[in-house]
Amino acid sequence: MLIIKTIAEIKNHLVPKKNAAQKIALVPTMGALHDGHLALVKKARELAEIVVVSIFVNKSQFNDLNDYEKYPRQIDSDLEKLKTCGVDYVFLPSDEEIFSQDFSVKITPTNLVNCLCGAFRAGHFDGVALIITKLFNIIKPDVALFGQKDFQQVAVIKKLVTDLNFDVEIFAHETVREKTGLAMSSRNQRLDEMSFAKAAIIYQILFEIRNEIKISPESVVKILSEKKEKLLKNGFEKIDYLEIRDERNLKLITNFIPSQPARILIALYLSKVRLIDNLQI
Amino acid sequence: MLIIKTIAEIKNHLVPKKNAAQKIALVPTMGALHDGHLALVKKARELAEIVVVSIFVNKSQFNDLNDYEKYPRQIDSDLEKLKTCGVDYVFLPSDEEIFSQDFSVKITPTNLVNCLCGAFRAGHFDGVALIITKLFNIIKPDVALFGQKDFQQVAVIKKLVTDLNFDVEIFAHETVREKTGLAMSSRNQRLDEMSFAKAAIIYQILFEIRNEIKISPESVVKILSEKKEKLLKNGFEKIDYLEIRDERNLKLITNFIPSQPARILIALYLSKVRLIDNLQI
Repeated sequence: MLIIKTIAEIKNHLVPKKNAAQKIALVPTMGALHDGHLALVKKARELAEIVVVSIFVNKSQFNDLNDYEKYPRQIDSDLEKLKTCGVDYVFLPSDEEIFSQDFSVKITPTNLVNCLCGAFRAGHFDGVALIITKLFNIIKPDVALFGQKDFQQVAVIKKLVTDLNFDVEIFAHETVREKTGLAMSSRNQRLDEMSFAKAAIIYQILFEIRNEIKISPESVVKILSEKKEKLLKNGFEKIDYLEIRDERNLKLITNFIPSQPARILIALYLSKVRLIDNLQI
Repeated sequence: MLIIKTIAEIKNHLVPKKNAAQKIALVPTMGALHDGHLALVKKARELAEIVVVSIFVNKSQFNDLNDYEKYPRQIDSDLEKLKTCGVDYVFLPSDEEIFSQDFSVKITPTNLVNCLCGAFRAGHFDGVALIITKLFNIIKPDVALFGQKDFQQVAVIKKLVTDLNFDVEIFAHETVREKTGLAMSSRNQRLDEMSFAKAAIIYQILFEIRNEIKISPESVVKILSEKKEKLLKNGFEKIDYLEIRDERNLKLITNFIPSQPARILIALYLSKVRLIDNLQI
C-alpha cells in the first residue's frame, strides 16, 4: 500500500495502470474510517484491479466551521485499517495541494440540492461537487464508491457525472450499521456512551414509519409528525427533516403510492452531533 | 473525416485511440469557420495524431439572446473547409445532446472574469467553462487549441484546467488577421463592406497605442482616452473597454513598466457588431 501526498505523484503512478487498461476504483473519504468505509474498499477490491482510497477533509463542503474543526482526524489508525484491506494507493493530499491560494472556481449543482441536507447545509453540495470533480480528474477512476447513508449525496454525484459527462460508474453501497442499528458515521465518535445507545432509536423509527405507512399510505403526514414528536421526547434536540421522497428525483411524497420508489430520510441532532439516515420503503 | 453527432459515438471512436496512446488534439469551435480556425486545425495536426474539431454554438455562453440568434451558422461550408485540413473527427452535437432537459449544473470561474468581456457579458465565462469542461470530459484531449484573439477566454480556460486538474495542454494560437489587419472572427461576416474596411482601424490603433506608450509609459490613461475619442469619431458606436492589463493576472495597468508583460485589449461595437482584439506591448 503506497501513501501518496501529491497530485503529480498519484497521476504518475496511475497513468501506466490506465494505459494497461487496468480498472481503477476510487473510494473518496474524509478519513476517520469505520466499517462502512471498509465495506466500500472491500467492494472496490471486487470491482477493479487498482483500488485508490482518498483521505481529505474537504473544508469546502462544510457549511459549519465548527463541524469542520471538530471533524475527527486520525490518519495513523486510518492507515492501519486500510493496510489489511488490499488497498493499492492512499491519496492523502494537504489542503494546499487540492486548493491553491488563488483557487477560483465554483461548481453548483442546481437540481436535487434544494431539499433535505441541501436545504440545511448552504453550499454543502457545491463543495461535494467540486472535490468529486477534482478527484475524478486526478484519479480518473472507472468506478467510484459511496455509502447509501448519504442518499442525497449519491443522487447529486450521479447527476453531476451525467451532466458533466464523466466516464465514472457510481456504486452506491448499502449502509453499514452498528450492532444497535445506528448507521455508521465518522461523527458517531463524537457521541458519548449514553447518546450512542440512544441513537439506535433512529433506525427503529425508520422501520416503524415504513411499517405504518404500508398499512396507512394516506397518513404520511400524520405518521411523520408523530414520529418527530417521539424523537424529541427521547432527547433529540432538533430534527432538520424527517420526510418521504421519491428516490428518482427526491420529490416530496405526502401520499404514498406503493408503485413509487420511495425512501424515508432523516437528519437530526443528538448531543450537538448531526446524524442522518434513510430507509427504502 | 468522420462527422459524429452523439457523445456515445465519439467516445467509442476515441477510446481505442486513447488506449493506443495516440495523442488527441481538440479544436473547439462554434462554426462559421474562418482562416483563424483553420490555422488552429493546422497546428493541431502538427501537435497530435488525432484531430477533433467540435462545432457547437453554445447558447449558455451568450449573454445576449439576439447575438446567439444572429450568430452565423453554415455547417455545409464549415465541413467543406475542414475536409481539406486533415481533420479526423468533426463532433457536431445537437443542443439536446449537450444539454439535456433536466441539465442542472453551473460552473463559475471567480477570478479573471470580473473585467474586460467578463464585466460586459454576464455569465459568459460560466458558459465557456461549462462547455469546455464537458468537451474535455467527452473528448479527453491531450491538447486543446484556442485563438489568442480571445485573450481573456484563454486565461480563464488555463485557470480552469489548473483548478479542476484537467490533463489538457492549452495551446494559444496567435491571432490570424484579414489583409486589412482586422482580427478574424465569425462575427466579421455581419459587417457590410464599408464597416469591414473601417474596422481595420482597430488594429492600427492598437499599434499606435503600443508605440506611444513605449515613448510615454506614464501617459497610459491619456493615450487610451485620446484613442477612444478617435475611434468614436471614426463611427464606432460604443467602446466596452480599451485597457492595458498584466498578461499574467489581467490586473489593470495605468503606469506601464517595461518589464511587466502587458497587453492592450479592446472591445467595441461597429454597425451593432461587437468586435474584440488585443496586442502585446
